Amino acid sequence: MIGPEIETLINLLSRMPGLGPRSARRAVLHLVRKRESLLLPLADALQTARDSIVTCTTCGAIDTIDPCTICADPRRDDSVICVVEDVGDLWALERAKATKGRYHVLGGVLSALDGVGPEDLSLAGLKTRCDTGLVQEVILATNATVEGQSTAHYIMDMLKGSDVKVSRLAHGVPVGGELDYLDDGTLAEAMKSRTEF
Amino acid sequence: MIGPEIETLINLLSRMPGLGPRSARRAVLHLVRKRESLLLPLADALQTARDSIVTCTTCGAIDTIDPCTICADPRRDDSVICVVEDVGDLWALERAKATKGRYHVLGGVLSALDGVGPEDLSLAGLKTRCDTGLVQEVILATNATVEGQSTAHYIMDMLKGSDVKVSRLAHGVPVGGELDYLDDGTLAEAMKSRTEF
Repeated sequence: MIGPEIETLINLLSRMPGLGPRSARRAVLHLVRKRESLLLPLADALQTARDSIVTCTTCGAIDTIDPCTICADPRRDDSVICVVEDVGDLWALERAKATKGRYHVLGGVLSALDGVGPEDLSLAGLKTRCDTGLVQEVILATNATVEGQSTAHYIMDMLKGSDVKVSRLAHGVPVGGELDYLDDGTLAEAMKSRTEF
Repeated sequence: MIGPEIETLINLLSRMPGLGPRSARRAVLHLVRKRESLLLPLADALQTARDSIVTCTTCGAIDTIDPCTICADPRRDDSVICVVEDVGDLWALERAKATKGRYHVLGGVLSALDGVGPEDLSLAGLKTRCDTGLVQEVILATNATVEGQSTAHYIMDMLKGSDVKVSRLAHGVPVGGELDYLDDGTLAEAMKSRTEF
């Protein structure tokens, strides 16, 4: 006995990651209660997103302009490209202010199980960017998973002919982490890559 | 280095119940990936909600018409009003098809701590509806919390003069529940209100 418009809204919201049917209903009630401060701005923001969010044709990030803010920024270092799996990873690195270089979003990882091959990722675009002569270093910042690492190896092989330096993120103890809770692989890597104090 | 439009969307989404900043970012990425199947319909649904969701002036439920679908439905029983705290409770009772009567949404519960007094709830409207002579029974379906029960008592006192029968939901063992996991209060109530088998 809920109106069809409200039902539709609940159904759509329940398909968002992190929300189920119950929390979608709570969300709708919350939206209706906070009409002025949340429902109206959110409806506007989604309209704007719908009309203006595009994928950057250079790096694959999402933004409201193409080329994206990072690709268009003249203060970024053209000689470094940081390769990430996904836009979320790019955002994480940007929040950490980890690099002043450019990015390249692969749009996934190689995965035989999921049927993702090299042609499904934006590898050709990466090769083209590396061949311009501007790029001196490619930082592989794929996730430290099996798929992420094998994708990194694939890219290293792909770039072997060119004179671009290929590096990857360091493995080690997370800042603030306790040794007792870390897995053996991380500890072994941290020991192997130990630095002078 | 995220565009301001995307930043705004993330900020707004992170204010929804059940979503924090991290899950709001994941949600935005999910929306952008599922542009056709989720972002566009959700933007439309929110616009519709914004333009059309109203609070029913009779019962306090939310719907796209006023009086709401339930208040306008001639097949519902005019002699019964089920009093609930919130629209979410009304939806729960409707999903369970628990009553064929009408509803009255209080919009909260009496709470000295939160400074909610009788004038903050839609009690006057309930009194008016009960005074029409149509209503024979008021079912108090407030939550089984201290505030919910004291609000129920307040309404019972308010309706004492009229010849409306006042009832409340039964307490007892939830269907599918195990006795071992139930609290003492529920078990005592279930024993007290036991029915012939």
